[in-house]
Amino acid sequence: MTIVSRLFSFADRVSAPQQAHAHCDLPCGVYDPAQARIEAESVKACMEKFNGSDDNVFKTRAVMIKEERAELVKHHLWVLWTDYFKPNHLEAHPELHELFWNATKAAGEAKKTNDVSVAEDLLAKIGEIDKIFWETKK
Amino acid sequence: MTIVSRLFSFADRVSAPQQAHAHCDLPCGVYDPAQARIEAESVKACMEKFNGSDDNVFKTRAVMIKEERAELVKHHLWVLWTDYFKPNHLEAHPELHELFWNATKAAGEAKKTNDVSVAEDLLAKIGEIDKIFWETKK
Amino acid sequence: MTIVSRLFSFADRVSAPQQAHAHCDLPCGVYDPAQARIEAESVKACMEKFNGSDDNVFKTRAVMIKEERAELVKHHLWVLWTDYFKPNHLEAHPELHELFWNATKAAGEAKKTNDVSVAEDLLAKIGEIDKIFWETKK
Amino acid sequence: MTIVSRLFSFADRVSAPQQAHAHCDLPCGVYDPAQARIEAESVKACMEKFNGSDDNVFKTRAVMIKEERAELVKHHLWVLWTDYFKPNHLEAHPELHELFWNATKAAGEAKKTNDVSVAEDLLAKIGEIDKIFWETKK
Amino acid sequence: MTIVSRLFSFADRVSAPQQAHAHCDLPCGVYDPAQARIEAESVKACMEKFNGSDDNVFKTRAVMIKEERAELVKHHLWVLWTDYFKPNHLEAHPELHELFWNATKAAGEAKKTNDVSVAEDLLAKIGEIDKIFWETKK
Amino acid sequence: MTIVSRLFSFADRVSAPQQAHAHCDLPCGVYDPAQARIEAESVKACMEKFNGSDDNVFKTRAVMIKEERAELVKHHLWVLWTDYFKPNHLEAHPELHELFWNATKAAGEAKKTNDVSVAEDLLAKIGEIDKIFWETKK
Repeated sequence: MTIVSRLFSFADRVSAPQQAHAHCDLPCGVYDPAQARIEAESVKACMEKFNGSDDNVFKTRAVMIKEERAELVKHHLWVLWTDYFKPNHLEAHPELHELFWNATKAAGEAKKTNDVSVAEDLLAKIGEIDKIFWETKK
Repeated sequence: MTIVSRLFSFADRVSAPQQAHAHCDLPCGVYDPAQARIEAESVKACMEKFNGSDDNVFKTRAVMIKEERAELVKHHLWVLWTDYFKPNHLEAHPELHELFWNATKAAGEAKKTNDVSVAEDLLAKIGEIDKIFWETKK
Repeated sequence: MTIVSRLFSFADRVSAPQQAHAHCDLPCGVYDPAQARIEAESVKACMEKFNGSDDNVFKTRAVMIKEERAELVKHHLWVLWTDYFKPNHLEAHPELHELFWNATKAAGEAKKTNDVSVAEDLLAKIGEIDKIFWETKK
Repeated sequence: MTIVSRLFSFADRVSAPQQAHAHCDLPCGVYDPAQARIEAESVKACMEKFNGSDDNVFKTRAVMIKEERAELVKHHLWVLWTDYFKPNHLEAHPELHELFWNATKAAGEAKKTNDVSVAEDLLAKIGEIDKIFWETKK
Repeated sequence: MTIVSRLFSFADRVSAPQQAHAHCDLPCGVYDPAQARIEAESVKACMEKFNGSDDNVFKTRAVMIKEERAELVKHHLWVLWTDYFKPNHLEAHPELHELFWNATKAAGEAKKTNDVSVAEDLLAKIGEIDKIFWETKK
Repeated sequence: MTIVSRLFSFADRVSAPQQAHAHCDLPCGVYDPAQARIEAESVKACMEKFNGSDDNVFKTRAVMIKEERAELVKHHLWVLWTDYFKPNHLEAHPELHELFWNATKAAGEAKKTNDVSVAEDLLAKIGEIDKIFWETKK
């Protein structure tokens, strides 16, 4: 069991029964780190597909789609950082700024490479955010 | 416990340990009905906020944001229908076409009203899709 | 005269004097399969340009632009399916669900290949939809 | 028969058998003023729906959707102006710059009002562009 | 002379001769806080237009457009924070995380109100970011 | 000092104290040619990065991102042309139509090549627009 899946399985435990959660500026109050995680899984899958292919057109498409998906990861993470987290959360979790900065930087790095470990690192960071997110929901 | 939450909790059981799943045309193979569900929860929350307010500007913003979120619900559902589901899934679940048609029509209806039961009906339909989705993953 | 152009010329006859037709969820009531067809022609043209070139940068751009145009085809078709067609249309044309499913799947296939026959198949399916669309307008 | 429909019916005659035509910067060579016209018909329909309703939420949605559709009109017209028309077309049709400038300004005006005559004026201008477009195709 | 304009005029001095600067993940290396500032000026202008009008449709449009412009402010600021600023910048300017967090939160607040002072506060924060940005360019 | 930088430095002089300036159809009244210029600088930087690299994936990404940035240049220029400039500006500057037509065509050309002189020509044209823009503000 990898660190990433352990983080998520921990998040799964703490977050059950997984109600839904804010992601617009109304604000509607529906936020969920799953949005970033799903796109990051897609980034990782694009890398694996790129590495497993020797068809140039396919590889070009993998690079192109990974770029879009990584941008979506950044967007979903930025929204969580700015819109969901409040000063009291930051007091309890002073590492939040640095964590989001590094996670969004990792999504940027994932655009530039097809090294799967970069996507895994991104997923691990999203896993840490997910864990903190669900702790603030308790 | 509502029908919707029962459907999701069933989906939660059948889908564990919830690996990730295709949503682009590479295809990367990462799909997840949670994307549609999160936006639909946002649609429902916008309706509740609209109904609970008597501030015209706020109500305008609720209508506007609900419109966008409902469009995202439609998009995520269309992607699942066209890209994830294959002829063999349709054989096992012949109701799929009608279910997606009605679910995306329900998302369209949710743009036109602030009647929360319309959003709940939408969520119930997404719950049915979610259940079938995870059954095909077994 | 190809099957595709015959289908369109038939549609041209039945649709005259070609009034305009709904594509938003107001709904404004303006729909027109021409939107999907124009993008699909662009998909086909991108393939032809790709096949006729030996400039790698140009070929990369053709793949990239085809991806966007095929996505627009899917979007315009999904909108027609969910928003324009009503239960009474489905009774008269029970093949509609399968036709739209296959047409949007064909648009997805067109992203993955530069085989012009795939784009022609997509255009033929849009032609069938166009024919049914204009019959419902009579 | 209005001026607009006469212009379009003229365009219909000159443009038959209406092959398809460029709208990206590859360029794929597929252009068609129908894209702008369909969105402009939607703008007009939104105005009519706005004027015929006394439901505030519906009216808000009509304004919002009209704004998007009018933006699409502008986009499709700008693409035609910059990408399709060439210096030799301008020599033959020296009014093109002024015509596109006024047509896109009319689309901007259509965002600001629910006066249907503004949308009709926009449609008439698109009709003039359509006529010139198909003349250049002869 | 307000605090905001003083900050900008200071930035003008330190940034001359204003070369250009990264805003994509290539990265192309072209960044400029002017992008966020221009959109924030638009947010402020929308508020002023809203406050100065008694036309409901116009006011609705002002709210709608302000929402989009404020979202663009957030986007441009997030890009600067994640993509431009590096660990060595943070060492020299440890307030950066908090400053960007508060500036993007201020853009979110600006969606919810037509109180011009909120837009001015947003502009002041962008001014502080602009000042630090150009200091890192020296 | 190149022609481009001279044009901009002239614009800098005439435009001080650089107030802000309309770019939506409210209209909010905030326009600024800097938006087009920043994206055009990015286009140029993408070309330079493309030419300086022999990594195929990196080159693909440079082409892809340049395509997006050039599209943004076109958009910002079109908005200025249609929305900011009025008939009285055209009387004083009768070259405006031709200048915007050529500038947006240059942005289209920049998508098709990695010849930096094309981007420099684009920047020079934006510089001319910028100069006229700030003259109309005097």
